[in-house]
Amino acid sequence: MENERRNFLKKAALAGASAMVIPSLMGFKEEDMDQAGKLRLDSSVESKLIVPKNNGLKITGTFLDEISHDIPHQNWGEKEWDLDFRYMKSMGIDTVIMIRSGYRKFITYPSEYLLKKKGCYMPSVDLLDMYLRLAEKYGMKFYFGLYDSGRYWDTGDMTWEVEDNKYVIDEVWKKYGSKYKSFGGWYISGEISRATKGAIGAFHSMGKQCKDVSGGLPTFISPWIDGKKAVMASGSSLSKNDAVSVEQHEKEWNEIFDGIHDVVDACAFQDGHIDYDELDAFFSVNKKLADKYKMECWTNAESFDRDMPIKFLPIKFDKLRLKLEAAKRAGYDKAITFEFSHFMSPQSAYSQAGHLYDRYKEYFRLK
Amino acid sequence: MENERRNFLKKAALAGASAMVIPSLMGFKEEDMDQAGKLRLDSSVESKLIVPKNNGLKITGTFLDEISHDIPHQNWGEKEWDLDFRYMKSMGIDTVIMIRSGYRKFITYPSEYLLKKKGCYMPSVDLLDMYLRLAEKYGMKFYFGLYDSGRYWDTGDMTWEVEDNKYVIDEVWKKYGSKYKSFGGWYISGEISRATKGAIGAFHSMGKQCKDVSGGLPTFISPWIDGKKAVMASGSSLSKNDAVSVEQHEKEWNEIFDGIHDVVDACAFQDGHIDYDELDAFFSVNKKLADKYKMECWTNAESFDRDMPIKFLPIKFDKLRLKLEAAKRAGYDKAITFEFSHFMSPQSAYSQAGHLYDRYKEYFRLK
Amino acid sequence: MENERRNFLKKAALAGASAMVIPSLMGFKEEDMDQAGKLRLDSSVESKLIVPKNNGLKITGTFLDEISHDIPHQNWGEKEWDLDFRYMKSMGIDTVIMIRSGYRKFITYPSEYLLKKKGCYMPSVDLLDMYLRLAEKYGMKFYFGLYDSGRYWDTGDMTWEVEDNKYVIDEVWKKYGSKYKSFGGWYISGEISRATKGAIGAFHSMGKQCKDVSGGLPTFISPWIDGKKAVMASGSSLSKNDAVSVEQHEKEWNEIFDGIHDVVDACAFQDGHIDYDELDAFFSVNKKLADKYKMECWTNAESFDRDMPIKFLPIKFDKLRLKLEAAKRAGYDKAITFEFSHFMSPQSAYSQAGHLYDRYKEYFRLK
Repeated sequence: MENERRNFLKKAALAGASAMVIPSLMGFKEEDMDQAGKLRLDSSVESKLIVPKNNGLKITGTFLDEISHDIPHQNWGEKEWDLDFRYMKSMGIDTVIMIRSGYRKFITYPSEYLLKKKGCYMPSVDLLDMYLRLAEKYGMKFYFGLYDSGRYWDTGDMTWEVEDNKYVIDEVWKKYGSKYKSFGGWYISGEISRATKGAIGAFHSMGKQCKDVSGGLPTFISPWIDGKKAVMASGSSLSKNDAVSVEQHEKEWNEIFDGIHDVVDACAFQDGHIDYDELDAFFSVNKKLADKYKMECWTNAESFDRDMPIKFLPIKFDKLRLKLEAAKRAGYDKAITFEFSHFMSPQSAYSQAGHLYDRYKEYFRLK
Repeated sequence: MENERRNFLKKAALAGASAMVIPSLMGFKEEDMDQAGKLRLDSSVESKLIVPKNNGLKITGTFLDEISHDIPHQNWGEKEWDLDFRYMKSMGIDTVIMIRSGYRKFITYPSEYLLKKKGCYMPSVDLLDMYLRLAEKYGMKFYFGLYDSGRYWDTGDMTWEVEDNKYVIDEVWKKYGSKYKSFGGWYISGEISRATKGAIGAFHSMGKQCKDVSGGLPTFISPWIDGKKAVMASGSSLSKNDAVSVEQHEKEWNEIFDGIHDVVDACAFQDGHIDYDELDAFFSVNKKLADKYKMECWTNAESFDRDMPIKFLPIKFDKLRLKLEAAKRAGYDKAITFEFSHFMSPQSAYSQAGHLYDRYKEYFRLK
Repeated sequence: MENERRNFLKKAALAGASAMVIPSLMGFKEEDMDQAGKLRLDSSVESKLIVPKNNGLKITGTFLDEISHDIPHQNWGEKEWDLDFRYMKSMGIDTVIMIRSGYRKFITYPSEYLLKKKGCYMPSVDLLDMYLRLAEKYGMKFYFGLYDSGRYWDTGDMTWEVEDNKYVIDEVWKKYGSKYKSFGGWYISGEISRATKGAIGAFHSMGKQCKDVSGGLPTFISPWIDGKKAVMASGSSLSKNDAVSVEQHEKEWNEIFDGIHDVVDACAFQDGHIDYDELDAFFSVNKKLADKYKMECWTNAESFDRDMPIKFLPIKFDKLRLKLEAAKRAGYDKAITFEFSHFMSPQSAYSQAGHLYDRYKEYFRLK
């Protein structure tokens, strides 16, 4: 064994791997180990799927969560973002959505308005410019997410969001919208559910301004369904008892869609707040409502797991599969995810994400 | 420096490492860096242990936590599971226990009963078949964990578990038990502690059926001790005040063992709910009770840390060592762990796990 | 494509990389992939910073968090610690501070007093000795953190800490202080804020003993500011409403500094409990007080993120930058961090840490 290891070390050194560390692995031989001295994957082993492959709606869009509410930052530089866009592309993603241009005092681009009038902090990088360049480089469409002052979360009142975004929408369109052909649309980022006070008026006003300023570029929203898992991320409980019924959901969203459909082109309900056996019931109502108001029906397929005490790590593949299969059954138009870079990327800090990427490509025959 | 780097890059390229990235490391030279441009471990440095080595009970079994309550999924394919079984083997593991065959609507194998009668979701892979094949391939004994409907957790009543498992046990034995010689026993997965209503009858009934159907294959349970750390994973507190006393624990478990010992061969108490200086007191009672009822006394050495706000990451090695040393002092028969793949495996998403594996092998002179 | 892959595999094999696994990456070519078959970083891509570089106070010290309250253990051996000291050095760190020599029954060195009188557990490695050796090897100054019995956390009374540390300080100085020239000072580890009962007397007594026994080696404390984020790590809320005002903070700390400044040389307030736009107000008061009492004014720049539900992962770089820029503006003397090994090290289990290290070096022109 000792001799073998010496030979292995010698051979590896000749191949330029002089930096390696070799823990001994009892009962295993040198050919079982890779250059880092770890046991190696047997690439001839294949997973045996017992369900039909490629039977769900493929994910073709992702949020970019650079200004985060509740997902710790990965501290990537432009090098890593460039690589991530290539990974997205290799999975079939053609649409990237910056989830918000700012949250409270942290912002993604050096906005004169937000820096001077709102005391926001100067970011070290102009992320908006970077994302637009990368989207252009990799042939993707970029959606701009509006500014979130945090006041709506604190007060339930959306007036402040409308006011701030009047300036933000104008500023952004002038500085970036005309410059980059990748600027493809607007995401009205206020996350609402049910009868949020003043939401219809606010969404209509913001959607209209986005369209007016940009010659009618598409807009979308991504609300949550007020289901059993609609709980605070910072809280310790994982579910609640006063979840909305399908009927009540339909009634309330019929009213909201009625008020906004002329300026909002698509609705991508978050798919993680209801249980897996409620997917079909809610999805068919969502599709019916979207059809009625001639909106596109998207799904925001959450790629993180809401059922675990660690908030949040990548979702188990079968859960994502169930949701994408339901979206296909319901005839949805497009699937986007929140979000690729933490929860599905091979370079994510959570290596469960890279394995989710592998499972996803295996299922959709993308490899 | 620039010249050196160029030379290094050139040499590395010749050795096939053209893909590398080289961050500069002030004050360090090229020979300090590995092929990825990171500073490299000095493999001549050794830890200096000041405690006797190899002084605990070695871990020879692990749970497989594929259907998880509270540990986020790693999204491994069969390739990664195959590798993990090799890592287990290299650490001395001869027994793998699938913690449960299903939990609520998520299941590990395409059970006709659970799919049709219980509305469970079709899994994309037959994990039961995969584990049995891998156990066979690597010469391990596989224990099958019963189905957990979740109703006992919700209601405190085990009736439902008995009813469902009547079908599951039969079905599984017919389809897999006779096919794989690695099918080596049963894990009665209901996690109880103290005087759970109906638990004795339920455990007896399920244990008896397992034995009857399989020609007497061994069965075991793995309850928790109702100690100070027996709190909800989803809650925010880490300990409680109404912990059980050693005397009360003995009294209650004497009664339970008395009622089940003819059909349950071993009891592996979870070791993580009591404090480290309570180990000897509880362990000696457990051993005494097991001896009295001619059961084997195992320990379920938890390899995750219950003392941290992140629930859960790998345990600090010295905590695991204290528990395994106590198990040895108490004369326990076997140590299993919950569980290898997240908390001790070199390919775990938590890289603390790989280091725990290294510390474990260092202590037990396995390298 | 198949041909290309075969050629790539063949070439890679010639270069000694026979262990690789190649997932296919649709639309990408072999030259886009590294030896592990992953898409590779394009090292020509550079981040474009829009803020002045090198405009903050550089971090030159770090805590060593081996006996942890609330940060899960990395299970490193001496090899990994040796490497980490090199990474620290490459970032400009000259000072390492062991955060505490023990916490409740877990201790860092085989203390006769704590083992015999307090029932502490024997550690498997003498970490104190190891850190002193590594500090010597890499030319750093080591500060010893006092023992924390946990009783102050439970009772609010510091009497027990003073009593235990009488023995610990003597023992440690005799056994290690005279032996290692890297032994450079003392960290009085009791974490207080505002008018903790008996804190002034306790800190004075411990500080005096440290200085008396060691010929006047420097001492420091690292209290928290009782700001809006001063909440329990194990709790689920991230902020509170009864935060201290700047005026009240100044009044209380004036009193504390007055009582301890003759035996405490520096104060490194933790910078994470106040909001980013409160930094200047609190920092200028801290500096004024330190100047008044001729103490050094340090900042404990927390490199973990207090704003996220996962407690705790590495901080977003821009947050760290804002804090270090504020410390520079306030004329602080030194920045230390809690802590490098989990939150800034390229070998941290949290790979966000390695990226934070890259961002830090990029900003401070250290590469």
